[in-house]
Amino acid sequence: MSLFHGLSAFPLTPADDDGRVDTDALCALLERIVASGADSIGLLGSTGAYAFLSREERKRAVVAAVKCVGGRMPIIVGAGVLRTDQAQHLARDAAEAGADGLLLAPVSYTPLMEEEVFQHFSSVASAASLPLCIYNNPGTTKFVFSEDLIARLSGVPNIAAIKMPLPADGDFTGEIARLRAKTPKDFAIGYSGDWGSPEALLQGADCWYSVVAGLLPVPALRLARAAQAKDAAGTKRLNDQFQPLWALFGEFGSFRVMYAIADILGLAKTRPPLPILPPPASARPRIEAALKDLI
Amino acid sequence: MSLFHGLSAFPLTPADDDGRVDTDALCALLERIVASGADSIGLLGSTGAYAFLSREERKRAVVAAVKCVGGRMPIIVGAGVLRTDQAQHLARDAAEAGADGLLLAPVSYTPLMEEEVFQHFSSVASAASLPLCIYNNPGTTKFVFSEDLIARLSGVPNIAAIKMPLPADGDFTGEIARLRAKTPKDFAIGYSGDWGSPEALLQGADCWYSVVAGLLPVPALRLARAAQAKDAAGTKRLNDQFQPLWALFGEFGSFRVMYAIADILGLAKTRPPLPILPPPASARPRIEAALKDLI
Repeated sequence: MSLFHGLSAFPLTPADDDGRVDTDALCALLERIVASGADSIGLLGSTGAYAFLSREERKRAVVAAVKCVGGRMPIIVGAGVLRTDQAQHLARDAAEAGADGLLLAPVSYTPLMEEEVFQHFSSVASAASLPLCIYNNPGTTKFVFSEDLIARLSGVPNIAAIKMPLPADGDFTGEIARLRAKTPKDFAIGYSGDWGSPEALLQGADCWYSVVAGLLPVPALRLARAAQAKDAAGTKRLNDQFQPLWALFGEFGSFRVMYAIADILGLAKTRPPLPILPPPASARPRIEAALKDLI
Repeated sequence: MSLFHGLSAFPLTPADDDGRVDTDALCALLERIVASGADSIGLLGSTGAYAFLSREERKRAVVAAVKCVGGRMPIIVGAGVLRTDQAQHLARDAAEAGADGLLLAPVSYTPLMEEEVFQHFSSVASAASLPLCIYNNPGTTKFVFSEDLIARLSGVPNIAAIKMPLPADGDFTGEIARLRAKTPKDFAIGYSGDWGSPEALLQGADCWYSVVAGLLPVPALRLARAAQAKDAAGTKRLNDQFQPLWALFGEFGSFRVMYAIADILGLAKTRPPLPILPPPASARPRIEAALKDLI
């Protein structure tokens, strides 16, 4: 199975309050993912707080991850940042450190135009010879990819995959069919949004880019494998066990809830980067209860 | 007249393609603003590309601006950045360099919650003893301030003003009345969005935070003074002269058009930071024509 297929697990990046990465704690999280048998690690994704970390700390995180994973599982590294030159630096840093692939979001302040996003992605894809996954996440970047822009980008050398948001109408089959018709045969189409992505796998998507798998890889992989095997009943049964957690993700944001999970399970001593706050203390009993069904 | 009143002019920050600020070119733009008699300089606003510049370059820009303006006009400095600790650093840097006030936007990646924005602003406002203007710009930050949050923030020491986006319904009078009722007597309420802000001044707003005044301070000030004098007919007549430019701002974004204006008028040799592109060459004759009516 190639990169950008199956279950990609996105861990937190444990760090202190000044944004210094705790590489030992990061490696402990990566060890759990490797042990689970997931298909890849999504390092420095949105869940990995890439947007809040400096170039130096991002490089430290990749170097440490490559060392501790030791080739047992491919590592996809988030290279998103506002400036094109800096995204190129991050892509080269990741390649030099030994990453297997890149994930790139059109991070924006000034809202971006299509041609700007096309040129930005082309510039970064040519900066390092690693396969690159387009990170389509309008919730954080404000940029909405048209299907025509995805088609155009899929023809750029090194651009090999896309990570889509859940379709508003829930019609994975139609969306995947339209994208497959417009992109090369080996272009991989995956989804993020944990509550809907198992259904995407059932309906033929190539990859589930999963937040929850970053900390709970075993139950997430069980769910992913049921969906990949087209076991609709099994997928529903396993997904139902996650429902209380999905509700909390919706209410507080998965990024915040993941920090609470890491704390409750004793997996890492770390807090979200301010201004992001952990979920309120009043939510903790519900998070604990949601975890009981899963572990 | 106090800070955060009248016409605040937002220049570009000329820089090379690596994000190194050209302080000589910046000072030449500031000299034009000082000579015009505008009320303040909005340094490192969105138009000043603050989001694309490093802490070091932002500090260099403020130090240079304070030196060349030499106390002839107050300088308000943008201190926005994703992390709270870094925004505090920027606020202290600006204060140490001699800035007169701060402008702070809730820059976001992970969408922010109200309590996070409240704590972020309180932390930055307490980091430096400068009056601070809340920069409410959902178009770039994705965060929508509720009127209750504005009211709460207006009670925080040092938070002295707000820069509002144009109201969707165009009802400045109603919005200003509601905000005045909820905020302290000396809390200043201003607007950005050049095409609508003269009307805001006419209807009683305290300040027009103006993009165009960064490069064309003389005609912008004429328009602002007509509006401040409640001369509705004069305001309309002068604003009509700007209509071709406002249309171009709407079509390409004011940030991009400002770089083209600087180039056409020979005011600075600089390009927008990639991935931002200048307006297409085909738009240049229209920009030149729009300028003819104004200068």
